[in-house]
Amino acid sequence: MSINAEIIAIGNEIISGDVVDTNSSLIAKSLLGLGIETLWHTSVGDLSQDIKNALKTALGRSELVLITGGLGPTDDDLSVEIIAEALGRNLVFVDEIWQNIQSTLIKGGRKVDSYNKKQAYIPEGAKYFLNGAGTAPCVVIEESGKKIFMMPGVPSEVKYFLESHILPQLKNTSDTAIKVKKIKLAGIPEASVNEIIKDIVTKDTHSIAFLPKSSELEVKITAKAKDESSASKIVDEVKSEIVFRLKDFVFGYDDESIENILHDILTKNNQKISVAESCTGGLVSKLLTDTSGSSQYISLNLVTYSNEAKIKMLDVKKSTLERFGAVSEQTAQEMALGIKKLSGSDFGFSITGVAGPTGGTLEKPVGLVYVGITDGKSTQTHKLVFPEQLPREEIRLRSAKKALHLLKDFINKSIF
Amino acid sequence: MSINAEIIAIGNEIISGDVVDTNSSLIAKSLLGLGIETLWHTSVGDLSQDIKNALKTALGRSELVLITGGLGPTDDDLSVEIIAEALGRNLVFVDEIWQNIQSTLIKGGRKVDSYNKKQAYIPEGAKYFLNGAGTAPCVVIEESGKKIFMMPGVPSEVKYFLESHILPQLKNTSDTAIKVKKIKLAGIPEASVNEIIKDIVTKDTHSIAFLPKSSELEVKITAKAKDESSASKIVDEVKSEIVFRLKDFVFGYDDESIENILHDILTKNNQKISVAESCTGGLVSKLLTDTSGSSQYISLNLVTYSNEAKIKMLDVKKSTLERFGAVSEQTAQEMALGIKKLSGSDFGFSITGVAGPTGGTLEKPVGLVYVGITDGKSTQTHKLVFPEQLPREEIRLRSAKKALHLLKDFINKSIF
Repeated sequence: MSINAEIIAIGNEIISGDVVDTNSSLIAKSLLGLGIETLWHTSVGDLSQDIKNALKTALGRSELVLITGGLGPTDDDLSVEIIAEALGRNLVFVDEIWQNIQSTLIKGGRKVDSYNKKQAYIPEGAKYFLNGAGTAPCVVIEESGKKIFMMPGVPSEVKYFLESHILPQLKNTSDTAIKVKKIKLAGIPEASVNEIIKDIVTKDTHSIAFLPKSSELEVKITAKAKDESSASKIVDEVKSEIVFRLKDFVFGYDDESIENILHDILTKNNQKISVAESCTGGLVSKLLTDTSGSSQYISLNLVTYSNEAKIKMLDVKKSTLERFGAVSEQTAQEMALGIKKLSGSDFGFSITGVAGPTGGTLEKPVGLVYVGITDGKSTQTHKLVFPEQLPREEIRLRSAKKALHLLKDFINKSIF
Repeated sequence: MSINAEIIAIGNEIISGDVVDTNSSLIAKSLLGLGIETLWHTSVGDLSQDIKNALKTALGRSELVLITGGLGPTDDDLSVEIIAEALGRNLVFVDEIWQNIQSTLIKGGRKVDSYNKKQAYIPEGAKYFLNGAGTAPCVVIEESGKKIFMMPGVPSEVKYFLESHILPQLKNTSDTAIKVKKIKLAGIPEASVNEIIKDIVTKDTHSIAFLPKSSELEVKITAKAKDESSASKIVDEVKSEIVFRLKDFVFGYDDESIENILHDILTKNNQKISVAESCTGGLVSKLLTDTSGSSQYISLNLVTYSNEAKIKMLDVKKSTLERFGAVSEQTAQEMALGIKKLSGSDFGFSITGVAGPTGGTLEKPVGLVYVGITDGKSTQTHKLVFPEQLPREEIRLRSAKKALHLLKDFINKSIF
């Protein structure tokens, strides 16, 4: 049968806005891979009546209920007690859970307190998975043909339980196959993509969603069918058609990022890059080194925030800065050449701009950014303009991502 | 009267997990400042029946319902139509909204399409706020004594409507005063804090929550009273007591960050800093420059990822690297001294470690990090150990934050 899931996130810190709930999106995304659609997310505080109401509503409309939060050892974490009460079950002590809690605490150099014992109680008749990333177990309850999974709220523990226990157990429970493919685009606005593929956006067999990210756009194709191969066939056909129409803008698929793609290109080519940043202040370097193994192609990056640093470290001419300013094509070009020379890398690239919210002028407004790229033989500069009213953080992120895309294009052209 | 709010986030991209809903936490946090508690967050897809059910449930238990998402110009955005239908109201065209949409599109260099006209229809009897950050208006509906606000799902537009229209309008509607104070701590684990203040954690007058962040801990005090001054008085008293007991670990309050605090100290002292990073790959520099105006105290930062870069740029001795390794107290010390000399800043600091997930050894496991700090006269090094199983991203963030705290302590001591 086709199974629908519902997620309940419990915690005062979530409903009061102190913590953004990232667990629910991870759970929903993971379940979709098994053909299970999540139709509802609910967040409630640590209040008994609200938790009971949320559970009752969920059991009334969903086959599968995944609950996160409220499993801590402290007095305000009462999810297990409340859910047990709502289902009319007693709590029972499970020694295997208690042993696991103690050994986890001891391994982590923490002391075992009697209040930790609370986490070893589960509702009568429930099953459990021991925690490999913390103390509280995952509690599994079957209730009138429905299934409830209760997990702690710590994101790394949710990830652990999903991957190690819940997803393997739920595999093949849904007789609907859902296949998802994301096509990642850069350099083209959403409206143009919509125009180019609008005749295939709405069909009975599949749905297409546009997900704009900073300087990128994801086109997500979802197909639902009776079996995996039918769903795959639909997704593949739609994907091929979209890629055919938009091939110049496609840079990757699914979870690929521009950083990963640069990693693959540079590793394969055995080439090195170096960046000299101004407005992004280290963000480009941080993104490039998010990928484990990036030390193969990154040796030295610079954040030259002041004019003095640009002159001293990168040989940017004082006259260039005086005549054109730090945010200019000329400065970006000299920065790229300077970092290439200093680092001895195959490619030098640079980024300089006005990230705001202050520092903008009529001539050089907030959102104006220049990127320079060189391989020693040829040097390119690019002028980027982002909306002035964007927050500083977003201007920096879009600039950094766009710079990485320009770098990739430059490297690919320099090879062929 | 005491008012309870409920938030409904509409969108397939949210329930499928493609987008993490950050609007709900922003809304909840903002409302709390007006004495309005949010008790429920619900997310549903763009399905008519689910949206109607969510609205019905919300109106049954909350005085105030805030809805985000589904107000776009495309065919799958149907929130206004569905809500109007659920409330038995017709849609009416509002020319003022249409004029605003057109001028917003033209100002942004986009073309006006007939399908944008859809956003100018609102339910009969509803009020509206024009959008200052996009096209769709905020729709305000009064329904049997309850109030509904409908907003677009774009976070910057939600922020605009909250600040410019919704919060000013809701001011003084709740006769309950809620005051919140966050005390920010570093250098002490949650369990120890709990032990030290456990006698004041549970009281009738206030509640205290612990919110662990990367290398930091927030202690949040919330007091609810009949009027503002009573609530403030309770919060201030509890705050004073906590600060008295934990003063050595308090570094800030509310929305202050270690980056802001360093900004204030360095600006006031007219001092400059420079960082040489290895394992954090630019993250420390990025955090420091997140604050607008950081160019006053940052001129040059380096990411010396390879041994060669450490030797060439920072004068780290080859023998030091050979004897102790890149991840060592000695290398951290030489990196700090090297960046101080190269930059001419008042303080040089460095960070080198194993961020993982690969690259760890028995002697130097993943999570081992060294920080070096110098003012030219005295030089400190610190060994940090983070749990090996943490993701790379989290090890890098905790290292970076901890390094900034150590830097702050060093600067404060070097002044007195």
